[in-house]
This record gives sequence, structure tokens and C-alpha cells, in this order.
Amino acid sequence: MASPVTFWFEFASTYSYLSAMRIDAEAEARGIDVTWRPFLLGPIFKAQGWDTSPFSIYPAKGANMWRDLERRAETYGLPFDRKAEALFPQHSVLAARTAIVGLQADWGRRFCQQVYLAQFARGLNISDPSILADCVAVAGGDPDQALDLAQQQPQKDALRANVDTARAQGIFGAPSFLVDGELFWGDDRLEDALAWAQRV
Amino acid sequence: MASPVTFWFEFASTYSYLSAMRIDAEAEARGIDVTWRPFLLGPIFKAQGWDTSPFSIYPAKGANMWRDLERRAETYGLPFDRKAEALFPQHSVLAARTAIVGLQADWGRRFCQQVYLAQFARGLNISDPSILADCVAVAGGDPDQALDLAQQQPQKDALRANVDTARAQGIFGAPSFLVDGELFWGDDRLEDALAWAQRV
Repeated sequence: MASPVTFWFEFASTYSYLSAMRIDAEAEARGIDVTWRPFLLGPIFKAQGWDTSPFSIYPAKGANMWRDLERRAETYGLPFDRKAEALFPQHSVLAARTAIVGLQADWGRRFCQQVYLAQFARGLNISDPSILADCVAVAGGDPDQALDLAQQQPQKDALRANVDTARAQGIFGAPSFLVDGELFWGDDRLEDALAWAQRV
Repeated sequence: MASPVTFWFEFASTYSYLSAMRIDAEAEARGIDVTWRPFLLGPIFKAQGWDTSPFSIYPAKGANMWRDLERRAETYGLPFDRKAEALFPQHSVLAARTAIVGLQADWGRRFCQQVYLAQFARGLNISDPSILADCVAVAGGDPDQALDLAQQQPQKDALRANVDTARAQGIFGAPSFLVDGELFWGDDRLEDALAWAQRV
């Protein structure tokens, strides 16, 4: 019996895009249950003294990340457009709160994937409620109801609690995977995390 | 005909250890030529405002790195001892200059591997000339001659030139792999770099 995996993701995170598109198929093939938990890196980065993404603070690191992302997306057969770079890092609070609504219903994961595709394959602004509404609709939810719920206190509290929980578990970047107390960081550790879940 | 790969490594770098132990066998199996080039991350980190390793500056990131390194070393069948953490990051200038001597002879790569094993499998201090002398001897070089040469101006200049070249090529971390102008960063991109070399 494989252990469950918690998938911690941030909508503004480039490598979270790759994992969000890959994780369910990879986990299902191994018989592993996955729980999706959106969080925000902003407060965690701020505590480290950064006021934006390290990819923006350190230009050589950022340049390599975009090229690496492009190569990796091609390897995985995922669409990617470099114009996404112009808006990076995007404000992801409303998307994350909307994901919390969707993940309590049955359209959450498809919504998350639509948000990532809007951002990284089409270069759209995912802080725009109309873009998010389109993503909810494609995912099979009710856009008006979802965005209304997303802006209510329970969803704000739930997202804040996710950030606190992430930090308490030693999470410092995204995507991260937690399996039986083991933390794996980065899309390139997805397979390691799934192997750990099957370790017994 | 596969393209050649340049392997940029820093002796103090934990993930460079994994690549230094893996790259030649992986490259040989694919018919790829590899050039080893030691450099120093200190001057590059300093230019980014860091006075030590980011793994030391950011504790959550550091904690994850050590655990990840332990897991990855086990996967690769490489020895690793957590006591290496106590001396991290080590002063690597003399080791790097000695490597430059060895890489001009025929014992350089074995020397590099011995230095990494001394540091990460045995927890030894690789800034200690007697430790480096042992590594030279095991690798098949003349320890006295090698350490004497390592402290002469041509080797100092060569290492400085390596740092300048690394920075000019956009290198910001170690290990890094350069193939036909494509930069790959991290031991977890070694296979990507080798695949790129065979891309044609």
C-alpha cells in the first residue's frame, strides 16, 4: 500500500506548472493518492529577506530557469511560451483562493491546470478575475459562485493556514512534495517523491 | 558525433560531488567527451550579495539539501556521511589549484573524486594540504610536486581565469554543464546535458 503524497504548489511558480500537469498521471500509474494544497511563496520569501522571486533577484539564475523550463516543457510535451516571462512573478492570491473552492468540489485540479496553462502557455494575467472565471468554466465549475466564494473569509483563512502549515513543515519553495514526513523540493524530485511513497 | 560537454565544478559544492562521481561513466556510455573545469563559487556568490553558501544562509533550504543529498547518494550507490555538514562550506582554493595541476597530467579526475570522497564520505578537511597530498597519491600523482606547483602563479592565474570564464558564460552555481552554448545547472540536469550533446 503506497503512502499518500501532498503536492504543495504556488500558482506563480514556474516549476509548479510542470508538476501540476504531470503529477496525477504519474501517481495514478503507481497507485498513489495525491492531495493538492495551494500556498503562497510571498510570505515565505519575505521571511528570507526577498521581496520577489529569487529568479528575478538573481538574473543569471533567472535566465537559466526560463531556458531550462522551456527545455523541460518540450521534453514533457507541455506547451510553453516565453512571453510568460514578462508578467513573472504573477499575483496568485485570488487564483489560490479559487483553487481552494474548487478542490472542495470536483473541478479543482482541472482549474489549477487551466490557470497554469493560461499563464505559461498563453501569457495571460492570472490575477484578472475574468481569466480565472474562464478557467473555472473550462474546469466545470460555476464561475460567478466560485469567485464569490473565493473572496470570502473561510477561503482567505484556509489559504493563510496552508502557508503556515507549509512553513511549519520546512517548505521553502515550490513545488514541494511531502510523503511520510519526507520533504522533496522541485519538479525534478517528483519521481523521487513517488518512489518514496512506494518504499514501504 | 556527439558534442563535447564542459563540466564546471566547485569542490565545496555538495551536488558537484554527485556529478564528479557519475559524469565520466555516463558520458562514456554515450560516446561523449567531457572536459573538467574547477572554479570557485565564492566570488560569484559575493557578486550576488552572499558571503557564504545559500544553503547556510537559508536554513530550511539547507536542511532539505542535506537530506536530499543523502537520499540521492543512496540512490546512486555513493558513500555519504552527514558529518560533512559540520565543515560546510569548505575552503576549496588549494584543492582547485591542485586539480588544475592534475588535469594537465593524467591523474586529475581521480584526484577530484578522491577530494570529494574525503569531504563527503569521510568528513575530512580538504583545505588541509596533507589531506590533499593523500588524494594526489591515491590518484597516482606526486604529492610534493603537485602541491608545490599548485601554489605557483600559473595555477593561481588559471583558476582565476576559470572563474571569469564561468561568470561570463552565465554560470551561477555548481555543478554546471555547458554543451554547444546551452547551460545546464545541477546534478539533476546531468542527463539532460548529455542528451543535449547527442541531440544533433
